[in-house]
Amino acid sequence: MTVVLKLGGSVVTEKDATDTVDGPALADAADAIAASGADDLVLVHGGGSFGHPHAAAHDVSRTDGTREATAVREIHGAMRELNDVVCDALCERGVPAVPHHPHSAGHRNADGTLSLPTDTVATKRDEGFVPVLHGDVVTHADAGATILSGDELVVALAAGLDAERVGVCSTVDGVLDDAGTVIPDIENYADVERYLGGSDDTDVTGGMAAKVRALLGLRAPASVFGPDALGDFLDGGTPGTLVR
Amino acid sequence: MTVVLKLGGSVVTEKDATDTVDGPALADAADAIAASGADDLVLVHGGGSFGHPHAAAHDVSRTDGTREATAVREIHGAMRELNDVVCDALCERGVPAVPHHPHSAGHRNADGTLSLPTDTVATKRDEGFVPVLHGDVVTHADAGATILSGDELVVALAAGLDAERVGVCSTVDGVLDDAGTVIPDIENYADVERYLGGSDDTDVTGGMAAKVRALLGLRAPASVFGPDALGDFLDGGTPGTLVR
Repeated sequence: MTVVLKLGGSVVTEKDATDTVDGPALADAADAIAASGADDLVLVHGGGSFGHPHAAAHDVSRTDGTREATAVREIHGAMRELNDVVCDALCERGVPAVPHHPHSAGHRNADGTLSLPTDTVATKRDEGFVPVLHGDVVTHADAGATILSGDELVVALAAGLDAERVGVCSTVDGVLDDAGTVIPDIENYADVERYLGGSDDTDVTGGMAAKVRALLGLRAPASVFGPDALGDFLDGGTPGTLVR
Repeated sequence: MTVVLKLGGSVVTEKDATDTVDGPALADAADAIAASGADDLVLVHGGGSFGHPHAAAHDVSRTDGTREATAVREIHGAMRELNDVVCDALCERGVPAVPHHPHSAGHRNADGTLSLPTDTVATKRDEGFVPVLHGDVVTHADAGATILSGDELVVALAAGLDAERVGVCSTVDGVLDDAGTVIPDIENYADVERYLGGSDDTDVTGGMAAKVRALLGLRAPASVFGPDALGDFLDGGTPGTLVR
């Protein structure tokens, strides 16, 4: 039973700094993943303070590209560095994490659609590894190279791997209404549109609105929850908001 | 006109050390590539002292795999480190080099055949980047993860990108006969089999014999030559041995 789990960039990094890991939060997340003993897990993490500042410095977004190899290498290099730290934390706890770098695995077509074959990810999973993907800069036909968000990866992986469950672990406890209460279920975007603003931080990849819209398009049920509920989700629970 | 060029691991590293770049040799190669102004170039480099010792330490070869995530990460990490140095040398000279890591781009099927989609590489090329691939450790169905050699990548890229020319830059001036003279043309393996021994160094990926066999299978003509002839090859010449 394949589970696609995203750790938000704001969970594993100090999002108001640059290139700074949130060590205790990452340790807690890695502990929860190791404790769950989850099989067939595919992980994604966001960019947080490693991805967004570098992308912003070079004016690169999901639609505005760069043709500067040095800009591509700087953004990608920062994300690889974060990915190494995440894989280290997992491997130290016995989780057989291996990197899977989207820059080398896929690209965008001229219309912006993502081409990311998932058979190599599936082979990693089937061989007992836990592939760890991340937001990245990817080549974009007719635009140079643009940003690929962790949320887009979650959608592509859930569809391509026919995942049974999807988890999005963010810094908030779920999708909140205007009273700050977690909305337990979302089945239509229109029902919750009025609650979903943009992200407060430097985020070239869209906030909760884009997340919810993307998750609604999946066949698999998706849970949006906070870091404290990670263990519950991995044990089969549906903490936070269930999007389906 | 796509040119696939491999820089041998023994060209860019000190092959009898561990994790040691041959700085002057790499600088010369990068100078030659920058001076050529070659368009539509796709580069591959071997593992040399970054790949082979780590693979040997974990008993990983093209056929013997590992299921240890830490072994995979060690071998892959060393190759990424070398790849970064190669890309640095190229970018410093104005060549728009970007990494393309085979561990994330492909895998082996259970019968050992390589699955490496080349459309992402082609998009990089078409957007004006110079993708730089490298020997790596890749997931292998039913075997964990095994070594993918630079020579195998050359073959997969030449076929997948419909390359017009292939160059293999090694530390020797071509394929040598038993008198140490460069054989100018090879059209049949049987004609030269008696001259082709194994590689002297720690090399899990096969020596000249495997190289020649693989190049004979290509549609594109392939030149095998030494570092001093790199500029000549990039200018359209056919130094060393022409395999076709």
